[in-house]
Amino acid sequence: MAPYKHFLVDTPFPFVAHVQINRPKKMNAFFEEMWLEYKTIIDTLSLSHDVRAIIVSGAGDRAFCSGLDVQAASQNGVFAEKGLTPTDPARKAVSIKRHVQEFQDCISSAEKCEKPVICVMHGISFGLAIDMSSCADIRICTSDTKFAVKEVDIGLAADIGTLSRLPKIVGSFSWVKDVSLSARIFSGDEALRVGFVSYALPTKQDAIAKALEVAKLLAEKSPIAVQGTKELLNHARDNKLADSLRYTGVWNSAAVQTTDVERAMLSGLKKTRPTFEKL
Amino acid sequence: MAPYKHFLVDTPFPFVAHVQINRPKKMNAFFEEMWLEYKTIIDTLSLSHDVRAIIVSGAGDRAFCSGLDVQAASQNGVFAEKGLTPTDPARKAVSIKRHVQEFQDCISSAEKCEKPVICVMHGISFGLAIDMSSCADIRICTSDTKFAVKEVDIGLAADIGTLSRLPKIVGSFSWVKDVSLSARIFSGDEALRVGFVSYALPTKQDAIAKALEVAKLLAEKSPIAVQGTKELLNHARDNKLADSLRYTGVWNSAAVQTTDVERAMLSGLKKTRPTFEKL
Amino acid sequence: MAPYKHFLVDTPFPFVAHVQINRPKKMNAFFEEMWLEYKTIIDTLSLSHDVRAIIVSGAGDRAFCSGLDVQAASQNGVFAEKGLTPTDPARKAVSIKRHVQEFQDCISSAEKCEKPVICVMHGISFGLAIDMSSCADIRICTSDTKFAVKEVDIGLAADIGTLSRLPKIVGSFSWVKDVSLSARIFSGDEALRVGFVSYALPTKQDAIAKALEVAKLLAEKSPIAVQGTKELLNHARDNKLADSLRYTGVWNSAAVQTTDVERAMLSGLKKTRPTFEKL
Amino acid sequence: MAPYKHFLVDTPFPFVAHVQINRPKKMNAFFEEMWLEYKTIIDTLSLSHDVRAIIVSGAGDRAFCSGLDVQAASQNGVFAEKGLTPTDPARKAVSIKRHVQEFQDCISSAEKCEKPVICVMHGISFGLAIDMSSCADIRICTSDTKFAVKEVDIGLAADIGTLSRLPKIVGSFSWVKDVSLSARIFSGDEALRVGFVSYALPTKQDAIAKALEVAKLLAEKSPIAVQGTKELLNHARDNKLADSLRYTGVWNSAAVQTTDVERAMLSGLKKTRPTFEKL
Amino acid sequence: MAPYKHFLVDTPFPFVAHVQINRPKKMNAFFEEMWLEYKTIIDTLSLSHDVRAIIVSGAGDRAFCSGLDVQAASQNGVFAEKGLTPTDPARKAVSIKRHVQEFQDCISSAEKCEKPVICVMHGISFGLAIDMSSCADIRICTSDTKFAVKEVDIGLAADIGTLSRLPKIVGSFSWVKDVSLSARIFSGDEALRVGFVSYALPTKQDAIAKALEVAKLLAEKSPIAVQGTKELLNHARDNKLADSLRYTGVWNSAAVQTTDVERAMLSGLKKTRPTFEKL
Amino acid sequence: MAPYKHFLVDTPFPFVAHVQINRPKKMNAFFEEMWLEYKTIIDTLSLSHDVRAIIVSGAGDRAFCSGLDVQAASQNGVFAEKGLTPTDPARKAVSIKRHVQEFQDCISSAEKCEKPVICVMHGISFGLAIDMSSCADIRICTSDTKFAVKEVDIGLAADIGTLSRLPKIVGSFSWVKDVSLSARIFSGDEALRVGFVSYALPTKQDAIAKALEVAKLLAEKSPIAVQGTKELLNHARDNKLADSLRYTGVWNSAAVQTTDVERAMLSGLKKTRPTFEKL
Repeated sequence: MAPYKHFLVDTPFPFVAHVQINRPKKMNAFFEEMWLEYKTIIDTLSLSHDVRAIIVSGAGDRAFCSGLDVQAASQNGVFAEKGLTPTDPARKAVSIKRHVQEFQDCISSAEKCEKPVICVMHGISFGLAIDMSSCADIRICTSDTKFAVKEVDIGLAADIGTLSRLPKIVGSFSWVKDVSLSARIFSGDEALRVGFVSYALPTKQDAIAKALEVAKLLAEKSPIAVQGTKELLNHARDNKLADSLRYTGVWNSAAVQTTDVERAMLSGLKKTRPTFEKL
Repeated sequence: MAPYKHFLVDTPFPFVAHVQINRPKKMNAFFEEMWLEYKTIIDTLSLSHDVRAIIVSGAGDRAFCSGLDVQAASQNGVFAEKGLTPTDPARKAVSIKRHVQEFQDCISSAEKCEKPVICVMHGISFGLAIDMSSCADIRICTSDTKFAVKEVDIGLAADIGTLSRLPKIVGSFSWVKDVSLSARIFSGDEALRVGFVSYALPTKQDAIAKALEVAKLLAEKSPIAVQGTKELLNHARDNKLADSLRYTGVWNSAAVQTTDVERAMLSGLKKTRPTFEKL
Repeated sequence: MAPYKHFLVDTPFPFVAHVQINRPKKMNAFFEEMWLEYKTIIDTLSLSHDVRAIIVSGAGDRAFCSGLDVQAASQNGVFAEKGLTPTDPARKAVSIKRHVQEFQDCISSAEKCEKPVICVMHGISFGLAIDMSSCADIRICTSDTKFAVKEVDIGLAADIGTLSRLPKIVGSFSWVKDVSLSARIFSGDEALRVGFVSYALPTKQDAIAKALEVAKLLAEKSPIAVQGTKELLNHARDNKLADSLRYTGVWNSAAVQTTDVERAMLSGLKKTRPTFEKL
Repeated sequence: MAPYKHFLVDTPFPFVAHVQINRPKKMNAFFEEMWLEYKTIIDTLSLSHDVRAIIVSGAGDRAFCSGLDVQAASQNGVFAEKGLTPTDPARKAVSIKRHVQEFQDCISSAEKCEKPVICVMHGISFGLAIDMSSCADIRICTSDTKFAVKEVDIGLAADIGTLSRLPKIVGSFSWVKDVSLSARIFSGDEALRVGFVSYALPTKQDAIAKALEVAKLLAEKSPIAVQGTKELLNHARDNKLADSLRYTGVWNSAAVQTTDVERAMLSGLKKTRPTFEKL
Repeated sequence: MAPYKHFLVDTPFPFVAHVQINRPKKMNAFFEEMWLEYKTIIDTLSLSHDVRAIIVSGAGDRAFCSGLDVQAASQNGVFAEKGLTPTDPARKAVSIKRHVQEFQDCISSAEKCEKPVICVMHGISFGLAIDMSSCADIRICTSDTKFAVKEVDIGLAADIGTLSRLPKIVGSFSWVKDVSLSARIFSGDEALRVGFVSYALPTKQDAIAKALEVAKLLAEKSPIAVQGTKELLNHARDNKLADSLRYTGVWNSAAVQTTDVERAMLSGLKKTRPTFEKL
Repeated sequence: MAPYKHFLVDTPFPFVAHVQINRPKKMNAFFEEMWLEYKTIIDTLSLSHDVRAIIVSGAGDRAFCSGLDVQAASQNGVFAEKGLTPTDPARKAVSIKRHVQEFQDCISSAEKCEKPVICVMHGISFGLAIDMSSCADIRICTSDTKFAVKEVDIGLAADIGTLSRLPKIVGSFSWVKDVSLSARIFSGDEALRVGFVSYALPTKQDAIAKALEVAKLLAEKSPIAVQGTKELLNHARDNKLADSLRYTGVWNSAAVQTTDVERAMLSGLKKTRPTFEKL
């Protein structure tokens, strides 16, 4: 993989990419250059023939991500409003909207990514950490992760995806509203109980190990099947049942013609591990 | 606050309103005049500059609300059909539809309310109690609250919002159908386990105390941030992801221009409690 | 009831039908003739005046359903492509799409059925078992049921409804993606914890007993109320809140005119068991 | 009918109400008090048992409505911002949004009205005139009516419904964008050609006569049938086909039980004019 | 083709089927047996490898279809309510809803049909004639066809599809409401002007000739291309743009792999008429 | 403006950009490099402070655009499948889908562009010409333009937007299906009659002059108002009325705060031409 400025990207297993946010001294807080690079990385992995599962985690012991680097943002971003004169709130609004949409677009890349994304969280996981992980397919954390939908505490409604996605990925709307309105901290164990994460492990090492295990498992399966499953689940979340069934039928009318079906079934009978063509 | 006929409304903390259903002798059962007054109260609080969080609870020890006062309703309401001759089912249907929509509209006021609403339930919480609390943002109860989607037992499909909202606020559709089809009683502890409520406390006093704590916390935060968060979460529940992100960007293009952001961030740095302009 | 080839259908209680998949030697695996017969049965029960609740379970000790009978399917079904020449992937796609839609349509019959359907699972419950049970209203299983969204392991994205329905019936999207992408086995207890099922009982006998208890309870209630509740909950799952409230008002404008309301209320007062006209 | 301050309301034929905007000296320009009264009138007629069709027109020779009375509005309305301090654009935005929604709500009353509304336009019909008439069911004008979606010329995107409704009531999206972006004047004849209106007559007198003819015709028909037709067409405009068919089936399951069917069919056979019960 | 009881079906050109409603003495009025047979015919043609375009017309000189045979319907259909006791409007409503949905389903078969359907109308074309033709892809009529959305005149809102489809197939909503609310007769020329039909010809013979010309043209083209175009246009009508583009991409990911592309392009270069494999 | 390889871009009036497809010798047929450049140009103009209206036309006398350059495409594009082995139709399908989505995305740039786009067509305007112009806001053509939705004739269903957009921009669905299924040529005059274009002028020179006149008019108006109008009309086309009204209220809550309102109104009173700040 190409070296990146703010992220470490390596390949712990064949077809598995591991992306680490690499600004541990600042608790992996983000500024604009970082989210642009994040999108570049994820988009590249999405199309790479050599990647079938992706892990996203944060370097260092203290934090997956402490959120937006407010200091950097206030110099260069929404709050600086990039040279617009401050006299017209409507023109400011246009500028802010463009900025927010670009930011949303970068973070949403993990959801649009054709390959499954597993997000591993530990330590401080505030604000943008929730936006980012909400785009992942499978969430894993340590029991003592400190989560917070922190934006309310800086006078904002979260706008990079948390409020749009939480109601669709956690079943208890009362809980979603509680944590989003109050900005209170909740633990990894609470996150597991309500279903925000699938696994809460004792240590970061355990959580990464679990993510590697899952990623390896997914990477060994038919990529046609795995990537189709991600696409169809995301479609289902947003669409009426009848529309989702119709889309599924059309999707599989091509996908079922894959040679992976025969390979997978033969391997099943022979108890061997199948190999699949690149995709 | 103005005195109301069927409700007690007071202000336990600055910017916190507490609305109590005040018909404890009848287990806080509702009749038409009550839900009309309820809407008046909630709509008033929604626009009041002095309110930033609302608690709804039921007076007395026995019940949050035992549902519709069927006796009153049968004299004056759906079943009396207000002077329509009974010979034409189509004309009856028009009358019933108008009545149901007006009733839905009154109960939905808590959801449309610009301020967060916390509903505290205890004792008997049947039928309309579920309709009402489903509109609240955060639900709190006592462990021994007796809940039931009771309408099936009087020959009706619940039509004041329960069936429309439960599938969107509790993740387990099997559970939602079980309790809605069977009208069986479920406890506060079960409600917590499935995510219908966020907190189940031992006593009514504890539950009210918890609600006050949460309401006070919300009332101290930026009202621009809190009310925007409520609006965006409600929008997300009902819309496709792309639509929700688009709406969020437009919403925040104005909201981010608030002075609350600066005040909140300065207070964060100075470890002081921020104050915010009225809204 | 008419005798069926692949299913046992009986009436354990008045107004309760019990449908058993009856191919226990093959672990109740399905082939095309079976799902066509399944639809015939469910459609018939849906319109029968003598049925108010339906239980679906699998005969034998080992499995509710082990999925598609791949051997049969490969001879006669998607993979045989029914006489189409294999030279044109687009024509194959049309044929596959028709086949998938017909298959979806058969399995969806339980969801469209006007009466509530309770699905009881035990033993192996793979692939099609998830598609089928996802259409039921209430899911019950044994603690040691072995569930798997197995399709990925044969190179396919599940297309008979699992991927379209799971995100709408289980709250934790992370869990849904985990089990759907990995095809890993999960137990009845895990299914209960995440809300996929409403009850996990020790033995198949217990699970069937629970289903009979629930079915009997539903069958004794007003069929107008029960069937309306099913319809309105299914509508709510797929529609925006405002649309759902509007539909509810129109639905009940006819349903509320039933004599069941008076009968149910009188029985409630008299503490007797109401009887309701056939529907 | 009760006397109103800014409108003339009379009953030219049994069951037909005629509402005239009555501020001809100011070319029927609107200010806030007027749109509040407009909603009161339309809501009253919507529920009146003595009204089956409504005509809306403008008094005087010069204008149906020249739009918003900008002078009045700038003293009292959006631009005065009702006592909010001008320092916080986010708080201004909240106030503006409330104001716009209330205004939209008043104008939308004609669309929500249960009875069909026929709008007759002549002379100047700018800005709010388009918002208002877009809510009507049938539009009639004089050939020389001067229409304009005028808001762009005062620095605004039209927000009281024109931009939301025009794409749904006129088929040519290129034409809709042309007139909405350019604010150019178009004639009654052009309006007829593109389908914005159903009839363009030589004089105001002719247009009113046509409206009376249509209104009389509608008022003589079954109100169950006419009002159901309005509801179902409005539903269809906003919903997917399958949803619309489903809603239609439920709607008519009550409506078809009307005695109007028998009366209408008997009258058809006997060539007499049917009379229908009040609704 | 198999002989049918109420319809004539023949093959005027290769791959073109012509279905004629064959009850000219009763002006091609429908009763239940007819719409069930109609669905059977259309469903059969939809799957036939020998059909690529379908024409629907009415036998005889006087009428395409005069609507429902009210006399037959009153003996056997909605108004007879098939043995339900008349005491419970809610149970009647269930029966009516089932009946309407089955009827809708039969008439909708032309829309769901995989092949393009051209509807030719002449003479009396009332009520059901509009429902039926609204499902067709291309509408052709004679200039003097007498059309009417006639249901209001028998006390009903049209419920077999007209009200659901007209707002989506004709651009002028004012015109749609005018003809649907008033039940007034409109001519073939008016139908052409507003876009309800594509061609209005002087005589029935001319209209049939035009339909044959169009059908022959469509039948000579790639069936993969023609049938995909029908599917994608119907999808687009009901879905948001982004969803429609996404669906289109998935649809064509299989369809573009057809050999028809090469055949069509080679024929284009060689100026020969391409032949395409059966579909 | 920067020089581009396949397009001429100039500024005929202040704030007006004119983009010409510049491959007249090949009748402005497109290949991949061209649509990528097209997106670059439109995205740049969308954000430029110096552009308020955009004209798109085709250089030369013979064609606006004759469609896809099939020869170039067959060497490098969908039909070459970029190095994928031809053995697996499912993998081909993934590749094709990516390609189609990228292509759609490029052409859709005109619709997403914040500034209004006016498309001028003349001569041959086949296939991609319809896709491109369907994204524009206002369509203008010469009377003798030869239009065709040509894709069916090369064995394809059009997938770059025509089938998704035509049903939403032209009211007559029968006409849309006729031209899309038959690939027949239709003239500029027919396009005007059905509402596909807003103006059909005698010569290309006239059509360009009309476009310049409209563009100049739009460029002189408040850019806040014009761009908001485009955004709200596009939103309305795809959304339910209630959602569109809600979005409009939020949008204008910021936009109404513009200084353009005061400037526009003052200029209106003083009969001067207003100037507006850059946006």
